Amino acid sequence: MFAHNKRLQYTVRVDGPNPGLANLMLEQFGGPQGELAAACRYFTQALAEDDAGRKDLLFDIATEELSHLEVIGNIVVMLNKGAKGRLAEGVEEEGELYRSITGAGNDSHITQLLYGGGAPLTNSAGVPWTSAYIDTIGEPTADLRSNIAAEARAKIVYERLINLTDDPGVKEALGFLMTREIAHQKSFEKALFSITPNFPPGKTNGDPRFASVYYNLSRGAGEERGSWNQGDQWQFVSDPDEQVAVDGGSGEASVELDSDDAELAVQLAARTASDPNANPLTGAEIGMGELPSGPDDLQLEEELSPTKR
Amino acid sequence: MFAHNKRLQYTVRVDGPNPGLANLMLEQFGGPQGELAAACRYFTQALAEDDAGRKDLLFDIATEELSHLEVIGNIVVMLNKGAKGRLAEGVEEEGELYRSITGAGNDSHITQLLYGGGAPLTNSAGVPWTSAYIDTIGEPTADLRSNIAAEARAKIVYERLINLTDDPGVKEALGFLMTREIAHQKSFEKALFSITPNFPPGKTNGDPRFASVYYNLSRGAGEERGSWNQGDQWQFVSDPDEQVAVDGGSGEASVELDSDDAELAVQLAARTASDPNANPLTGAEIGMGELPSGPDDLQLEEELSPTKR
Amino acid sequence: MFAHNKRLQYTVRVDGPNPGLANLMLEQFGGPQGELAAACRYFTQALAEDDAGRKDLLFDIATEELSHLEVIGNIVVMLNKGAKGRLAEGVEEEGELYRSITGAGNDSHITQLLYGGGAPLTNSAGVPWTSAYIDTIGEPTADLRSNIAAEARAKIVYERLINLTDDPGVKEALGFLMTREIAHQKSFEKALFSITPNFPPGKTNGDPRFASVYYNLSRGAGEERGSWNQGDQWQFVSDPDEQVAVDGGSGEASVELDSDDAELAVQLAARTASDPNANPLTGAEIGMGELPSGPDDLQLEEELSPTKR
Amino acid sequence: MFAHNKRLQYTVRVDGPNPGLANLMLEQFGGPQGELAAACRYFTQALAEDDAGRKDLLFDIATEELSHLEVIGNIVVMLNKGAKGRLAEGVEEEGELYRSITGAGNDSHITQLLYGGGAPLTNSAGVPWTSAYIDTIGEPTADLRSNIAAEARAKIVYERLINLTDDPGVKEALGFLMTREIAHQKSFEKALFSITPNFPPGKTNGDPRFASVYYNLSRGAGEERGSWNQGDQWQFVSDPDEQVAVDGGSGEASVELDSDDAELAVQLAARTASDPNANPLTGAEIGMGELPSGPDDLQLEEELSPTKR
Amino acid sequence: MFAHNKRLQYTVRVDGPNPGLANLMLEQFGGPQGELAAACRYFTQALAEDDAGRKDLLFDIATEELSHLEVIGNIVVMLNKGAKGRLAEGVEEEGELYRSITGAGNDSHITQLLYGGGAPLTNSAGVPWTSAYIDTIGEPTADLRSNIAAEARAKIVYERLINLTDDPGVKEALGFLMTREIAHQKSFEKALFSITPNFPPGKTNGDPRFASVYYNLSRGAGEERGSWNQGDQWQFVSDPDEQVAVDGGSGEASVELDSDDAELAVQLAARTASDPNANPLTGAEIGMGELPSGPDDLQLEEELSPTKR
Amino acid sequence: MFAHNKRLQYTVRVDGPNPGLANLMLEQFGGPQGELAAACRYFTQALAEDDAGRKDLLFDIATEELSHLEVIGNIVVMLNKGAKGRLAEGVEEEGELYRSITGAGNDSHITQLLYGGGAPLTNSAGVPWTSAYIDTIGEPTADLRSNIAAEARAKIVYERLINLTDDPGVKEALGFLMTREIAHQKSFEKALFSITPNFPPGKTNGDPRFASVYYNLSRGAGEERGSWNQGDQWQFVSDPDEQVAVDGGSGEASVELDSDDAELAVQLAARTASDPNANPLTGAEIGMGELPSGPDDLQLEEELSPTKR
Repeated sequence: MFAHNKRLQYTVRVDGPNPGLANLMLEQFGGPQGELAAACRYFTQALAEDDAGRKDLLFDIATEELSHLEVIGNIVVMLNKGAKGRLAEGVEEEGELYRSITGAGNDSHITQLLYGGGAPLTNSAGVPWTSAYIDTIGEPTADLRSNIAAEARAKIVYERLINLTDDPGVKEALGFLMTREIAHQKSFEKALFSITPNFPPGKTNGDPRFASVYYNLSRGAGEERGSWNQGDQWQFVSDPDEQVAVDGGSGEASVELDSDDAELAVQLAARTASDPNANPLTGAEIGMGELPSGPDDLQLEEELSPTKR
Repeated sequence: MFAHNKRLQYTVRVDGPNPGLANLMLEQFGGPQGELAAACRYFTQALAEDDAGRKDLLFDIATEELSHLEVIGNIVVMLNKGAKGRLAEGVEEEGELYRSITGAGNDSHITQLLYGGGAPLTNSAGVPWTSAYIDTIGEPTADLRSNIAAEARAKIVYERLINLTDDPGVKEALGFLMTREIAHQKSFEKALFSITPNFPPGKTNGDPRFASVYYNLSRGAGEERGSWNQGDQWQFVSDPDEQVAVDGGSGEASVELDSDDAELAVQLAARTASDPNANPLTGAEIGMGELPSGPDDLQLEEELSPTKR
Repeated sequence: MFAHNKRLQYTVRVDGPNPGLANLMLEQFGGPQGELAAACRYFTQALAEDDAGRKDLLFDIATEELSHLEVIGNIVVMLNKGAKGRLAEGVEEEGELYRSITGAGNDSHITQLLYGGGAPLTNSAGVPWTSAYIDTIGEPTADLRSNIAAEARAKIVYERLINLTDDPGVKEALGFLMTREIAHQKSFEKALFSITPNFPPGKTNGDPRFASVYYNLSRGAGEERGSWNQGDQWQFVSDPDEQVAVDGGSGEASVELDSDDAELAVQLAARTASDPNANPLTGAEIGMGELPSGPDDLQLEEELSPTKR
Repeated sequence: MFAHNKRLQYTVRVDGPNPGLANLMLEQFGGPQGELAAACRYFTQALAEDDAGRKDLLFDIATEELSHLEVIGNIVVMLNKGAKGRLAEGVEEEGELYRSITGAGNDSHITQLLYGGGAPLTNSAGVPWTSAYIDTIGEPTADLRSNIAAEARAKIVYERLINLTDDPGVKEALGFLMTREIAHQKSFEKALFSITPNFPPGKTNGDPRFASVYYNLSRGAGEERGSWNQGDQWQFVSDPDEQVAVDGGSGEASVELDSDDAELAVQLAARTASDPNANPLTGAEIGMGELPSGPDDLQLEEELSPTKR
Repeated sequence: MFAHNKRLQYTVRVDGPNPGLANLMLEQFGGPQGELAAACRYFTQALAEDDAGRKDLLFDIATEELSHLEVIGNIVVMLNKGAKGRLAEGVEEEGELYRSITGAGNDSHITQLLYGGGAPLTNSAGVPWTSAYIDTIGEPTADLRSNIAAEARAKIVYERLINLTDDPGVKEALGFLMTREIAHQKSFEKALFSITPNFPPGKTNGDPRFASVYYNLSRGAGEERGSWNQGDQWQFVSDPDEQVAVDGGSGEASVELDSDDAELAVQLAARTASDPNANPLTGAEIGMGELPSGPDDLQLEEELSPTKR
Repeated sequence: MFAHNKRLQYTVRVDGPNPGLANLMLEQFGGPQGELAAACRYFTQALAEDDAGRKDLLFDIATEELSHLEVIGNIVVMLNKGAKGRLAEGVEEEGELYRSITGAGNDSHITQLLYGGGAPLTNSAGVPWTSAYIDTIGEPTADLRSNIAAEARAKIVYERLINLTDDPGVKEALGFLMTREIAHQKSFEKALFSITPNFPPGKTNGDPRFASVYYNLSRGAGEERGSWNQGDQWQFVSDPDEQVAVDGGSGEASVELDSDDAELAVQLAARTASDPNANPLTGAEIGMGELPSGPDDLQLEEELSPTKR
């Protein structure tokens, strides 16, 4: 179970309100690379994990990410402080309040108007957080790689946020949060490589006929090769004929249907057949106010008004 | 630009219709670890990439993933063939059609009823595909790690699907697709480690005070350590007092407000203060049909009906 | 900041694996009325709250909801235990594994296939959790009412889950979780009514002309009245003429446009006008293979082929 | 399968970076009317299509839309070029970088901060692309109409984008893309009307009693009629009594319940009945700090505190 | 403004409860082709419409679709009647209630467990309704085409539902609803073709160089042509060289950067360059427990441990 | 069924176009606390409701909310009027049109570009409306509380919007809409408390051991108590040992597995075990271009290149 200490893991000192900056900080609060995503990712993995060491590791880091969520959330709340009071108490002249809400830039208006100057679980565009951001699949040799990548992404977004502000207290707290992502990545790397073997991930090996082939499918000027597709490890296939139907078959899709199903398929095809020999009048032509210019015009017209001749 | 060859990259031979199995296959068509996600991931990275080698690599693999989307899509369509005809032509007795749609199990009913037995871009629960699945952030030392993880996940879901079917043609095609994820992972690994240094990802180093600290936040029986938090590389911190306010500050959040904002904040607080000394009558007590049993009852009642005394 | 104790707030004893039941339990893990929603709701309110008493209350309950998320998550994981091993190790005969995944009923297939038998943050239909479930707006006289309602809903869903299982250990843990929602509701009721006045919520009073009016807009047999629209407190308005344009105006919408904008509006209207006097040939008629039967036929035909006369 | 040519279908020449304009262009990259939606729409239809002509048509156009996605994506990437470098390398003074990100206007901040100045699959408000945009249902007489409409919408959004920029290279490329939507619409119109009959869509005819009725349900000044509800084809029904329960029945909903279910329904109704004769004290009144003014006050008070008399 | 009549537009008579069938009916209640989508589509168009005739038409049909939403909602509620009571009152033996909820098939469990046997605004897979389903863009020559297509789709889904049930009362009500979609489609067709010209939609004509070109991009056996790409109206382009860079340019994307931006771009490229000449050791190889077999092994090893020689 | 009167419930008079303000108004049109959410909430509850009084009440208010949706929608449309014409007719100089769209502030660009200056069902950040906003669960003692809270929230958002504008006509109409939320809240309060008892909601009582306990889980300076956790009604538990495993058990989760499942679990654990005694070389270290500094270096190197010694 969890307990909460009223002190933060890192002290938050903000120079002054800035709802526009608050909105950008939401990226690490309710954004895809943010702390809620991190906490949920590791917490759910911890629940399902049976390996004692990894389970402990995942709970440790999940708990720290919750503590980071609280730090970044406090940064957001402090930056929104002035805006919150102005909107709730409505004492400014109206036009001025409108201008201050709209003029703060980016999407801070939604935080103020809908969320009352709090810390909503959205990204900086106002998009609600969704667990679709979490890519856990319940296999450690995949999940640990996902965690490594997630920490790398979070580190980068913090780096960008640090570049965006000149408030020293905010910068310092963001620096702490960014650094912790580096430490977490190192832990997950160790945990991954403590499983041997871990590649290919999972239990089954690949088909050796295709595991070292590289298909060169993007062609034209600008081709460049490197260790990712050249050297002894790779079979480089550029010939289009060797890239298609690589099993040696027809390259077609087929299914065995019983006679009832086959008959229905025929019936469906007949009902919905597009006649390739017709040149029908269409909505586009009516819409242009013109008859088609092709040779079928006359025939069309006859079909449309046979009784008129 | 793209071109299309009517032959598949791998021949699809399906033993017979099975809409329940088709529905499970959707996981790799319109699911989070599926081929559309893969193709979009690499295609968008390729567009923004400036490094000639990686750009080519990303276009090559994006194009192959589109070709895989076509293969898995054909498996889905073949498995749905019979169901499609039955529903569209409506020739079965009604009760029987209802039973066949409902009895196919899992969520195949939605594919049949709403999508007409086609190959919709949903996962196996009918959840529409969303680009929220794609975690590209435009920094190669993070994106390549995301790609490595994505390939690992896709490999695992294919492995599970292979375990689920005994149709040899489906198994074989899935085996090809699974193997290709292994090959792609190898390429992305090479591309990542061809960037030096690539750790920490991005441009900025972490704060050395926090980059090698491990906070032991999940406490109690069952603690286990490993290379992820022990050894010379790590400073292991278990004392709760050393885990809080690690900057040495108060662990509180603060912001400088100008006098106008400060006054508004006071006004807002006053208006919405919860009086800790009151013991108010509440909806819960009315809802129970009871007055609270505490000593404030009388006072409450007085407040409610002062004119009655 | 947060800390984690490896022991649960309530011991979880599960009789045996049941992935179908696990899937239903997801409703309180990653569903709209579940524990993640509760924890996030109170945690975000706590961050933005300035009243010391409420802030403490919200952190206390947020922390408990996180602990409940862990309890219900463990129930899910225990119920999925057998299924997880079978899928990951793939030792069953294939057809059997397919049947066990599909035959578990409801949507448990997605948990197994995509999430590997873990505890995903989805509801029981596989829909990813979204912060759109959280209705916090940053005003305590509204948010506390939202919390009261949220606790009521969570209580009901637990009550339903309790009715669904005969596993005594699961029943007991669910009973604890359900009871805590009752206790939380009571706390939030006290906190709400400790703010005086709290109705109408917010700062501004309503317009007295409309604050006690009840518009009877659903008419016909079956009308029934009660304290919600009868008695001295209510002005009951049934006459349709008194329900429309209640401000006494035209009931129309208008805006002042400057001459440039007005001209553009005229131009736009002219370009896109639908001629009420035309009886055009349409795609529907072509689609039926018929000309319209109305008196405009001849004229239409003339328009379509003027050169043919 | 697919192949990729490194040259674009249309050359992209951009005058200079403009992240605000880049953001608007996203509408046709990851927006609902954009090229990914188009490509996915036709590609999934092609997979499930059995008619040889339509299948070929759908693959041709799907492939072209992928090539358009690449063109519009390159426009986005070129317009974001400068912003990308500034953010990643962080060499600007911090305040300046913040101002350039926020001041670019609209939602370009999310593209820069979260997506690193790339081409994310979102619309211009930062909303992730979802396959909920795709309305394919697997019946060609409906799907082809959906395609016709989709091309019309895409054409309009391109027209708006063309109006928004004065960069001649961007204008020219957008003009090409817009024109191709016109060509595609013409093709889909031909394909639709090559199916005869295609109206009503599907297999079943409507009930002749209701197929030509027009219900005039919006009443009052401003009624205007046209060929859509007048003429020989239409039966115009304005009398409210002829608009309700048009089957001649009671206009009520009913179901046959067996005795067990009926009894439970009674029990449920009894437990949750709202007593129309009560005038209960409510949270609103407590919240106002007042007792209700109605005649039931005394009785209420008695109920609340019987022991006090 | 709206008024409500307690009688339905069509009487609903249901033979008996069937939560599985109720769940399928949700497709037309809260699904993408359902009545809420229809009502919202026409209502929002009506609000923004300035043409008196179309505005009236759109309000008439929007109002009717709301009335249909009520009809289909009543069908859902009646079919869920028994299930609702059983769950709420919890009188069945527990195992039996679980079986009845799970055994009803498809996704009816979510309606019962989460929504209490009511009529939730989800589709038949439990996916919440979203306005992403609505494709209105505010240009009548596009929106009317979207409406025509939407009516066609709704008609088909009703046709499928009719095929699925043998309850005569349900069949009859569905038949009414299906027929009305046909009538609505006819009205929208008339309104579209009352605008002249309406093709191409919008204000701007296409570029004549590309408006009649058909690019044959899907190649290989199985090509078939029809009026959609052959005849005098079309210029059929099959040569790949004529399909790429059709403007006659390089087919490349370019942007003018000022010197500062250009320098940053170079700096970014240098920092993140993948060295094509390296053959680095990667996570995959460590994961396999093997060193790469290529000629660079020795060098790699040297690089890794230079001090050891 | 529904009928529509062309006059609004409240006359809308707008001083002049203002697309930025229009965008903020969307919050009450297609936002989570807006009128569509309200109408859908009460309408779906009305459908499933069996109590005659509540059913009538719910239909009355649902119908009024639809009428409010029309009022707020007209405000949006009037405020967008000028922008709509400018974009559709494209007569402004291009740069100017871009500036007017981008410079209107907040997210109005999406309304103009994608939705053509209409009234889209999104919130003010452009997020599509979703029925995930609706929290109806089909139990009146919960749903009525949800309705009370929903009205409170809607009242607040209207209050904020009123503060934001100085257009007297807009202010007046918003004042009407805000006031009606107050009236609705009063009605729902009466309906809730007309059910006795209504607390705890639903049928089952809580476990008396836990129904009056308050767990003090957030610890440290700043603790404050009130009627929500002190007094005779509450048992206040602060000792961490009394907060964990409150059932008196182990606080662990367990499940009974049969021998087959148990064996598979062992096998899975063995395959994926993280070896706590290894200190493996990882991607992070390769990425840094360094070997780990720990004592296992030599061993690692030996493992990697055994043949080299």
